[in-house]
Amino acid sequence: MKPTLPQGTRDFSAQVIRKRGYIFDTIRTVFELYGFEPLETPALENLDTLTGKYGDEGDKLIFKILNNGLDNSQKHEQAKEDFKKILRGKSVKTLTEKALRYDLTIPFARYVAMNYGQLTMPYKRYQMQAVWRADRPQKGRYREFYQCDADVVGSYSFMYDAEFAFIYWEVFKRLGIDIELNLNNRKILTSLAALCNATDKMMSITVAIDKLDKIGIEKVKQELEKNGLGPRQIKIIEDYLNIKGTNQQKLDSLKTLFLNIEEGKKGIEELEFILSLLHDAPEGAFGKPKVNIHLTLARGLNYYTGVIYEVKAKNIEIGSIGGGGRYNDLTGLFGVPDMPGVGISFGVDRIYDVMDELNLFPEKMQKGATALFFNMGTEESKFAFFQMQQLRAKGISCELFPEPAKMDKQFKYASKKNINYAVIIGSEEIKTQSCVVKDLVKNEQVTIGLNEIKDYFTK
Amino acid sequence: MKPTLPQGTRDFSAQVIRKRGYIFDTIRTVFELYGFEPLETPALENLDTLTGKYGDEGDKLIFKILNNGLDNSQKHEQAKEDFKKILRGKSVKTLTEKALRYDLTIPFARYVAMNYGQLTMPYKRYQMQAVWRADRPQKGRYREFYQCDADVVGSYSFMYDAEFAFIYWEVFKRLGIDIELNLNNRKILTSLAALCNATDKMMSITVAIDKLDKIGIEKVKQELEKNGLGPRQIKIIEDYLNIKGTNQQKLDSLKTLFLNIEEGKKGIEELEFILSLLHDAPEGAFGKPKVNIHLTLARGLNYYTGVIYEVKAKNIEIGSIGGGGRYNDLTGLFGVPDMPGVGISFGVDRIYDVMDELNLFPEKMQKGATALFFNMGTEESKFAFFQMQQLRAKGISCELFPEPAKMDKQFKYASKKNINYAVIIGSEEIKTQSCVVKDLVKNEQVTIGLNEIKDYFTK
Repeated sequence: MKPTLPQGTRDFSAQVIRKRGYIFDTIRTVFELYGFEPLETPALENLDTLTGKYGDEGDKLIFKILNNGLDNSQKHEQAKEDFKKILRGKSVKTLTEKALRYDLTIPFARYVAMNYGQLTMPYKRYQMQAVWRADRPQKGRYREFYQCDADVVGSYSFMYDAEFAFIYWEVFKRLGIDIELNLNNRKILTSLAALCNATDKMMSITVAIDKLDKIGIEKVKQELEKNGLGPRQIKIIEDYLNIKGTNQQKLDSLKTLFLNIEEGKKGIEELEFILSLLHDAPEGAFGKPKVNIHLTLARGLNYYTGVIYEVKAKNIEIGSIGGGGRYNDLTGLFGVPDMPGVGISFGVDRIYDVMDELNLFPEKMQKGATALFFNMGTEESKFAFFQMQQLRAKGISCELFPEPAKMDKQFKYASKKNINYAVIIGSEEIKTQSCVVKDLVKNEQVTIGLNEIKDYFTK
Repeated sequence: MKPTLPQGTRDFSAQVIRKRGYIFDTIRTVFELYGFEPLETPALENLDTLTGKYGDEGDKLIFKILNNGLDNSQKHEQAKEDFKKILRGKSVKTLTEKALRYDLTIPFARYVAMNYGQLTMPYKRYQMQAVWRADRPQKGRYREFYQCDADVVGSYSFMYDAEFAFIYWEVFKRLGIDIELNLNNRKILTSLAALCNATDKMMSITVAIDKLDKIGIEKVKQELEKNGLGPRQIKIIEDYLNIKGTNQQKLDSLKTLFLNIEEGKKGIEELEFILSLLHDAPEGAFGKPKVNIHLTLARGLNYYTGVIYEVKAKNIEIGSIGGGGRYNDLTGLFGVPDMPGVGISFGVDRIYDVMDELNLFPEKMQKGATALFFNMGTEESKFAFFQMQQLRAKGISCELFPEPAKMDKQFKYASKKNINYAVIIGSEEIKTQSCVVKDLVKNEQVTIGLNEIKDYFTK
């Protein structure tokens, strides 16, 4: 039997793990610097916790766990009864009660609701874990992939909204990725619909204008018309889409547009607060975050109530590599009302692809152990083993070739494993308490005393 | 709806994650020092890959994933057909084809078999990931828990067998746990059965003598008798169990016992090789590993063919916190024969319990951000925000209280989150470019210049 992996899943080898770890560590470092705490939730959640949260399409993509024993043919009497129920469209609780985590937001909400009262508010958490979706696998889309979120809940303070702009900026500066950081506000989108007297059509308006960059203004107008909007309404939307200029100019135009719409004015104020904080900030170690007010940006609209973020990588054609926003009600569905918050997410798989393609991973990432000690015979290898123990105690990673073998074979092993140095200790070297160290990258070799190896590698 | 977690699963809060991270990082550091590379496999495996590998009892504990769409009542026509098959005891492929990782060994074997030819042999990998078992949850036993394994495959070299004794020793020294490191060899157990002329009863002999410490010699003898062993055979086993003394004395007694049994002599030699390497090793940074030859040790016997390891914590009543051994055939079931190897495993959950109970976690682990900047008003908080940006750039984690609030409330927040310092910048301080820093642990405060904060925290 030739084994395979399930569709849409991946093994991660050492090199990929190190590169992914570099991304995770960078994001984690920044989250911690900003006072966020880690949280981990289990892969398994009660099916009840997940269903109904992601829409009908989402529900179909949740991986469900078969109740234990059901696939055991000896136990099929119970299963038979259960299945009859299913065929009558009844609850399938008897078949499955548990499911795999589908995102990090709902488990976070479940955690906050379960531990409400114990948590110190505002609660700033970050979470980096795998999620599973029974999506059709395709290039760059997996059934098991990682999400990486940070949220603050329990506060309406816009300081946090601004802080996330700094966090995005700093993370991507550290990774070396040039980004475009787009901001919008749900209140502005709602106000546009109100301005058109089409509050009920807010959803379809947003979906249509969100496509502007892809399909152009004419096709957007056609779609709006198809959705039942009249010429005067479409004219208002077209004027909105024509708002151009600097961020402040855009907001000024909106102020005129939303002169009598309170919600719109609030949305503008929220964005202005962020812009003013960015404007007044000193040039820090990573420069000031540059943002664009992007009036067609929507992203998972239904959930957000305030600011909306989106990050795109420059110099490469790829979808967004981050997004998020402010919401009013994280935990209402779990019985805890009035839990506002704001959060962002990093698209780790895409960030990996960007970095790989633009060659942004530091070179040292590709390295194996520092040194391979050659195996020159039974006694020699024991001797080498003890030398290695002393280096390891000093933090130098090394390994021994497992059995006496031709030099060629041992060199090949070192090169395949990206090991930088070969250390050769034969019987002569034991007598003189020395060793031959060969730099496999520079292709140079030196003979040094055994007591000098440590310094040689750490210099 | 009050949400809950599935039985046997856990949320990990910040403090627990930091403590667990300390254990994982320590183990990872040592693995890397010894030249092991990380591997990660997906949580989802094909059901075929897992079934039949863990025995009948194990198979029942595998969590199976319901095929997508099956629990969707509109699609029940197909499901109906499928279910009829199940009721006739036919394959359940149509119901479930995927399952959750049950351990790290089989996915490792699957990976090696799939990538055989690409991998540089010997292949030294470590893996630290969650596994899932539909076991009855009880104190200290979870349905989602972590395993932490290292293996070398593709070599018969006993240098690796010895190396794992060093690795166990070093990891637990670094963690501060005193251990008993027990060794045995499967060949010795096999030879005992051969000596009794009961090779077919090797399994039940081993199971019985493995209980010696728990139930005493009389009950072991009763169990042997119940399993069909005669008085002369039981006498041989009793003599074996009476072997006492130093490691060398035990091996010497075995030599007499197995005078004519080649396999037994080989098992003794293998252990002697490890003992001699340990004996000759210099006192390193972590001292020489101390091991006990433990002649009743078996552990997952069927799989192992050579050395067997077991680690127990001293000064605390808890099961083993590590185990492993040498095997001849990792990948035969996946079509790649003759893949010998040796590996060990760390019981992370139990190690956590030991460290928690013996108070071995470093104190700094319990800390939140370094400083909380108080919110003294809109302008003051903006000013504080910019000060924080400069500290963060220097690697000092800090956060701002989100809105102006009573001092009391802000102090309480800092204390609940284990934050060490409060930094207060009011309008007066802005004028004088100074701030009040309060050490919340020592309950002392100083007024310093803004340009001194950085040094104050890093001194």
